[in-house]
Order: sequence, then C-alpha cells, then structure tokens
Amino acid sequence: MPRRVSESTIRRLSHYLRALERLESDGVPTVSSDELAERGGTTAAHVRKDLSQFGSFGKRGLGYKVPELSDRLRRILGLDARWRVVLVGAGRIGSALFEYPNFAARGYDCVAVLDADPDKIGRSWGSVRIRPVEDLEDVIKGFGASLVVLAVPPEAAQCLAERAVAAGARGIMNFAAVQLRVPAHVAVTDVNLVMELEALSFAITQAEPAGPAV
Amino acid sequence: MPRRVSESTIRRLSHYLRALERLESDGVPTVSSDELAERGGTTAAHVRKDLSQFGSFGKRGLGYKVPELSDRLRRILGLDARWRVVLVGAGRIGSALFEYPNFAARGYDCVAVLDADPDKIGRSWGSVRIRPVEDLEDVIKGFGASLVVLAVPPEAAQCLAERAVAAGARGIMNFAAVQLRVPAHVAVTDVNLVMELEALSFAITQAEPAGPAV
Repeated sequence: MPRRVSESTIRRLSHYLRALERLESDGVPTVSSDELAERGGTTAAHVRKDLSQFGSFGKRGLGYKVPELSDRLRRILGLDARWRVVLVGAGRIGSALFEYPNFAARGYDCVAVLDADPDKIGRSWGSVRIRPVEDLEDVIKGFGASLVVLAVPPEAAQCLAERAVAAGARGIMNFAAVQLRVPAHVAVTDVNLVMELEALSFAITQAEPAGPAV
Repeated sequence: MPRRVSESTIRRLSHYLRALERLESDGVPTVSSDELAERGGTTAAHVRKDLSQFGSFGKRGLGYKVPELSDRLRRILGLDARWRVVLVGAGRIGSALFEYPNFAARGYDCVAVLDADPDKIGRSWGSVRIRPVEDLEDVIKGFGASLVVLAVPPEAAQCLAERAVAAGARGIMNFAAVQLRVPAHVAVTDVNLVMELEALSFAITQAEPAGPAV
C-alpha cells in the first residue's frame, strides 16, 4: 500500500464509491472506467490510474465488478470499520455536523460532544450529553476515539489539537482558521469556509482581471 | 496572470494573507519568507514559489513589506471587492454559514436566502427574509450576485446549479455530495464533510493496515 496518495485522489475515490453504490442499489453488475469516470466527474484514464495505485481491479474489455470494487474501495477508505468521533464545540457548525445523517451511515459515530460554555454543558443532544472540554482526554481514551472534530474558535484550536493527539487521536477535522501543527502520524483535514469562498472569488478574479461586476 | 493555479496554492495564499494580517495588526513592518512559511504551515521555498507566480515581491535579504504584500494578496484573492452571495438552503448548514461572522468581514455579503420548504419561506434571518427557491434567477440577476452557495439535498443540486449559472452565477460553493457539471467559466468548490472524514480514516487506515483500534 502506498503511504502518500494525493488528496485529490482520495476525493475521487470517495466519488467513485458513491457512484458504485448507486449502481449497486440499481442492481448493475459491472461498470466500465468510462462510465465510472463520467459519474465521478473525471476521465477514464484517471480512474484507471487512481485504482491501479491500490492493486489490480477489473478486466480489460469487461469493466469492473460493481460489488467487488465498491467493497475494495470501502476497505481502502477505512469504511469497513466503525470510527468513533469526538466533537469539540457545540456551536452552530457542531450541531449541523452532529445531526448530519450521513456520518453514521458511513460508519462515523459521534460518541461525545464537548464545549467550554457552562450554558451548554449538561444539555443533551439526542442521547449525548454535552460535557466540559476539560474531559477531552478522558473521553478520547474512554471511547478509544481516533477522530476529533474541532469546531472551536481559532485561538483554542492548537491547544485542543495537542491535547487530543496526546490522548491518542489520529485524525483531526479542523474548522478553525488556523494551520494546526501536529506530529507526522496525525492526519488533519481543514474545513475553512471562508477559504472556500476565497478560492471562488480568486478563480473569478483571475478569469476577469477587472474584478466582479458588482 | 496565470489562469491555472493549483487549489493548494490558493489555500496557501489564504494562509499567508491571514498570517500577514496578524503581523499587520501587531505593527510588524516586514517579514521573511521563513517566518511566513512557519506561520503558513509550509516551507520558505514554497512561499517564494507561490508568490512568484503573481509577480515579484520582496527584496533578497530584506523580506516582504507586510502591508504591501497583504494588499497584493487581497487583490489576487479578489478581496478588494465586495461579493454578493446567494444562499440556497435554509437548513442547519445554511444557518451556520449565514451567521458566520467572518464572511462579511472578508467581503462576502449574503444578500438572499432561498428555500423550498413552505414552513421556512417568509421567515426572517436578521434583515433577510427567506424566499422561495423559484426566485433564484430573479435574486441572482436583481442583486448581480456572482456567488451561490448550495446547501441543498444532492438530488436538487445539479438543477439548481444549472439555473444559477444560466442566471449569471460565476462561482458555486457546493455542500451536496454530488459532482456538479458546470461550464468551464464557472468555478465550483465542494464542501463534503463526509469526504473530509473519509480522508482522515483513509490516512489512518493506510498508516496501520490492520485498521483502527476500535
């Protein structure tokens, strides 16, 4: 197994898996790289290259077996296991995440919610009671959680990341607009919604240097 | 100006700008590529390469002038203009976005919110009244909005994207778990929170092929 796979490859693998699961539920037995490319928003050459990084799939001229390939992709993406997720930050983003139906369906169980706000601590979200952020280490160790979501203010994020890593977290989904410094064995994915908008305004500005028509 | 700049470069430019703005507010006049790299979570060589794509900045041995470079980066990222944003989908994600204080601070004004749910239409979020999704074209044209946020179910996203583009939208921030097909002049950024978690579980699984310790 390769240790370094580009982020865009991982996203494409996720898209292929979604396409395959739709085909599976429609009872389609095989799919060509052309069809998979079309549904994954990429090219057939890309599909073949992406998949070849993880072994050999499919037969020339016959395409890929849908159930087999989706199983393999689920294993590659770590979706054959269930993952325990600790959510730090019971604000709007946190609550949107917590109620996101697709997380549990994909194998991600939010086992605990923490916050620093005394008004929030003790409240219940479904069957989960919001706990003080001081409990972070206990919660990660107690549940054996490997994933932590930080939906907290930027100034709190680095310290919480360090505490989470020291307690055993292996992956952090970071909503704070700061670059987290973590050891190499820890994966971080940044979700910065302002930066997403900046990427759009950048693309539009570059296309028409005179600026937007506002 | 280059037309194609990699997504990771754009994200780093955003990080540099954040670092520069903190330096600016601390009254620091110049910064070296080393310092900027440290704060942007990258290397000095990367900083120089990223910036060189947009012209020449800084003097060898003297570093970059903080106010000058941050101005240039704001212009490169299109942040010297204000951007009108139409939000489609008044659910949890939509409301979290709408109240996100950093959007307005960065020049993004959410001028309209639309939803398909009759229970939501007519309610007010701050000074913005939620309008029916049928008004999409009118709203985009009326406000001259170039950016659209789609926080809608996957099955609704492609059709709404096409309508938005036909009405003049140039950039789409897409929260639906589908690959949107849009013309080449339209920029799309996908925010798929499940895929972010998948990228983490993928990284952890690849690092320890036996799977997570749950």
